[in-house]
Amino acid sequence: MQTLNVNWQPDKTAATPIYQQITNYFQHQIARGDWPVGAKLPSQRKLAEAFGVNRSTLITALDELIAVGLITSNPGSGMVISGNHWSSLLAEHVNWSQYVKAGQFKPNSHALQKINQFETDAVIRLSTGEPAPEQFPRALFQKAFAHLGQNLTSLNYTEPAGILALRQQIAKHLVKVGIHTQPENILITSGSLQALQLVSMSLFPANATIYTEAPTYVKSLHVFQSAQTHLTGIPMDSQGLAYWQMTPPAKDEHAIIYSIPTFNNPTGIVMSAERRQQTLQYAQEHRLPILEDAAYQDVWFDQQPPQPLKALDTTGNVIYFGSISKSLAPGLRIGWTVAAKPVIDRLTDVRMQTDYGASSLSQLVLAEILADPEYETYQANFRKVLAKKAAAAQAILHRYWDDFATWQAPTGGFYLWVRLADAINIPKLFDLATARNVLFNPGSIYDFAPNQYVRLSFSYESSERFERGIQILTELIHANFAV
Amino acid sequence: MQTLNVNWQPDKTAATPIYQQITNYFQHQIARGDWPVGAKLPSQRKLAEAFGVNRSTLITALDELIAVGLITSNPGSGMVISGNHWSSLLAEHVNWSQYVKAGQFKPNSHALQKINQFETDAVIRLSTGEPAPEQFPRALFQKAFAHLGQNLTSLNYTEPAGILALRQQIAKHLVKVGIHTQPENILITSGSLQALQLVSMSLFPANATIYTEAPTYVKSLHVFQSAQTHLTGIPMDSQGLAYWQMTPPAKDEHAIIYSIPTFNNPTGIVMSAERRQQTLQYAQEHRLPILEDAAYQDVWFDQQPPQPLKALDTTGNVIYFGSISKSLAPGLRIGWTVAAKPVIDRLTDVRMQTDYGASSLSQLVLAEILADPEYETYQANFRKVLAKKAAAAQAILHRYWDDFATWQAPTGGFYLWVRLADAINIPKLFDLATARNVLFNPGSIYDFAPNQYVRLSFSYESSERFERGIQILTELIHANFAV
Repeated sequence: MQTLNVNWQPDKTAATPIYQQITNYFQHQIARGDWPVGAKLPSQRKLAEAFGVNRSTLITALDELIAVGLITSNPGSGMVISGNHWSSLLAEHVNWSQYVKAGQFKPNSHALQKINQFETDAVIRLSTGEPAPEQFPRALFQKAFAHLGQNLTSLNYTEPAGILALRQQIAKHLVKVGIHTQPENILITSGSLQALQLVSMSLFPANATIYTEAPTYVKSLHVFQSAQTHLTGIPMDSQGLAYWQMTPPAKDEHAIIYSIPTFNNPTGIVMSAERRQQTLQYAQEHRLPILEDAAYQDVWFDQQPPQPLKALDTTGNVIYFGSISKSLAPGLRIGWTVAAKPVIDRLTDVRMQTDYGASSLSQLVLAEILADPEYETYQANFRKVLAKKAAAAQAILHRYWDDFATWQAPTGGFYLWVRLADAINIPKLFDLATARNVLFNPGSIYDFAPNQYVRLSFSYESSERFERGIQILTELIHANFAV
Repeated sequence: MQTLNVNWQPDKTAATPIYQQITNYFQHQIARGDWPVGAKLPSQRKLAEAFGVNRSTLITALDELIAVGLITSNPGSGMVISGNHWSSLLAEHVNWSQYVKAGQFKPNSHALQKINQFETDAVIRLSTGEPAPEQFPRALFQKAFAHLGQNLTSLNYTEPAGILALRQQIAKHLVKVGIHTQPENILITSGSLQALQLVSMSLFPANATIYTEAPTYVKSLHVFQSAQTHLTGIPMDSQGLAYWQMTPPAKDEHAIIYSIPTFNNPTGIVMSAERRQQTLQYAQEHRLPILEDAAYQDVWFDQQPPQPLKALDTTGNVIYFGSISKSLAPGLRIGWTVAAKPVIDRLTDVRMQTDYGASSLSQLVLAEILADPEYETYQANFRKVLAKKAAAAQAILHRYWDDFATWQAPTGGFYLWVRLADAINIPKLFDLATARNVLFNPGSIYDFAPNQYVRLSFSYESSERFERGIQILTELIHANFAV
């Protein structure tokens, strides 16, 4: 329990009575959240001294604060901040077990909160899954803005499933990866994360098992773990998910497969065409519906990856999640879900209860850009630059890390999945690195057990800054671990 | 149980074997959702006839379909579509009780789904809470687009709580209504609905009572009803919420107030300044935290309404929800939550797990527009037009409805809350009206018991189209009810 420091004194020349200045000060500190619920107040003697007031004035103030419930006085333990009523609700929820049970939200882990916070600061970000600002196609956006500025007649709510023009463009875009679908089978979401959220809230049966690659991006989220489901990791080999290691659900049980078959995040593994067929077949036989996360589908280097599971799906068993976040701009917050119409209808219905749809502005701008023939040119160039950055990042790792690190060369995606020598304590390295303003993602946040991996993104930082980051990590490794 | 019609035949000249054409057809129908799970197949004899194939070919096809789980054969009841695995999950969830219990989502009511669907069609929409397209300030958007087009260097993820420049503009904007706050006390959300969702998921204790005005907008949503909470309506008088009619929570119980004090949706009632002070005082005494929904704060006609509860809140007890949806453009999907820092931090954390933030594009464009001095001019004009439309709508109602309808003149907001004579069956009128392409919202969707009210929006349609809508409703009323 924290004890509060007080470095403030009332203004004895002011018109406001001193006791009231004190209660105002308390209210201000608590309302701003500077004094958290549960924090202990100094003794009355010390408080009176700190404020430079006599004891009776202080007691008048404290009585009033107790009366409105901002502080409580416990015999034995003294006075503590009981706070405004919201803060007391916050305090109660430090134990989240009841919410997890109720399918509600767990707070993010401390490490993830730190990463989210840092992501926006001026540090070397080997952590982030974002395209580089240098690759941002401003000209494409300028054209879309100009066109939109001339034609926009309102920005009201859109069709529940998303603006039709955008769904049409996405249907056309999907043909390129072998998915033949209709706008009515597409739901526009605020990125894929929202889509996962919607599916989790509206389609997961209680106590379902969710089988997924180990490691997997989704393990770093709470989206599937907050619902009453069992997220179960299944190993991969070089061809992808080792589907035969799943336990088929018994007759009265439910299980679902969540897979990132193309450029698995974090490992970069691509499921082979044959394994895709086998996995679909296995899923069909054992009544396992499939969630296919295709966030990195368009982010290949030299060769287009095998067709998505959805392209091979003849029974509507696969729900497909696409996103523009990795190939164009995460700030648009646009993803798409492709599924059979009843599934889309259900998700759309729940979605309308959640936030009334994605930004119309983002949808309209993206529809313009996807319809622009220059989008293809941009994509081709984006891939070329990304492939170069991947090669440069690997050359840098070879230069500095060959003695204590190994990895597979990726063929697409944003990441190197690097195994470090056992002597390197990764949580410790993470803390040392953040203190030096270098951020990477420890592999364990993606896995079902601690591991010796780190995920390094080569997409966001320039190769120069990537190298600077690796230099700092190298220094830290040599200074702290026996490698 | 539905029996399926079959009006398709295999192509006997095609290379694909006939039994396989049949299985393909089944798969296609099921995958598209045209054949729902549980639908009954015609008998084998009838099916063979319909397809124009012999019985053994049909049986080969059916056997394969049974093998992959798309149909099941029940002795006695014949064959039914068991569908792809997602559709069987959908079918199972028709009974949502377990999800409601688990804090998960109820499907929207049929009427609400219909409204959401119709909202985007070419009908007379006396239902929608949107500004009129005629009032859309395209010039403001064009300026913002042009400026952004020149300066945008990326569209990546934003600060978890929202883009700082926007939070700064909103803090400035809030000063005009008497709220003095800091960017760190503001969370940007995808409209207010998402904010309610986040609060509901992360701050509502299990079994909490949510006291709210009856009727209220939030009753038409599932947001507070899906969590394990008890939404309880409290009457209003002409000064607003009759707070003294609430039952204060016992020591181990939790209760929360959700209020729309300014232009209550649907009634338009404005809580008086005195009632605001009293409500705050009562809440403070009885440890009731307050959610203040201020979606219509800026949408007054001639006179600025009393300051929000949040402006009078000295202890951080009020969480304030603002939105740009009513005063500018719902399609931006931008709202803001103002609260003590620990509350903002918690909501931000959960929010990052939900969708990684609101559209950066929407945020940047709104920050530009709020910073533009011409935004004030636009707002003043917007209010003037809205006041005129409210007056025109009332003149129209007086012309056609004086015999069987009464209402209070609103001083802001988008709606007339109209009581119809008892002889008028409102659900029946709703159905008749939708058949004539006129949409209004039955008052019962906002209330805790059936009522004789309708909510008519005068904001969206022109006064001419509003009158046309009223004419049609008048015809229907005279033709069907004894008024």
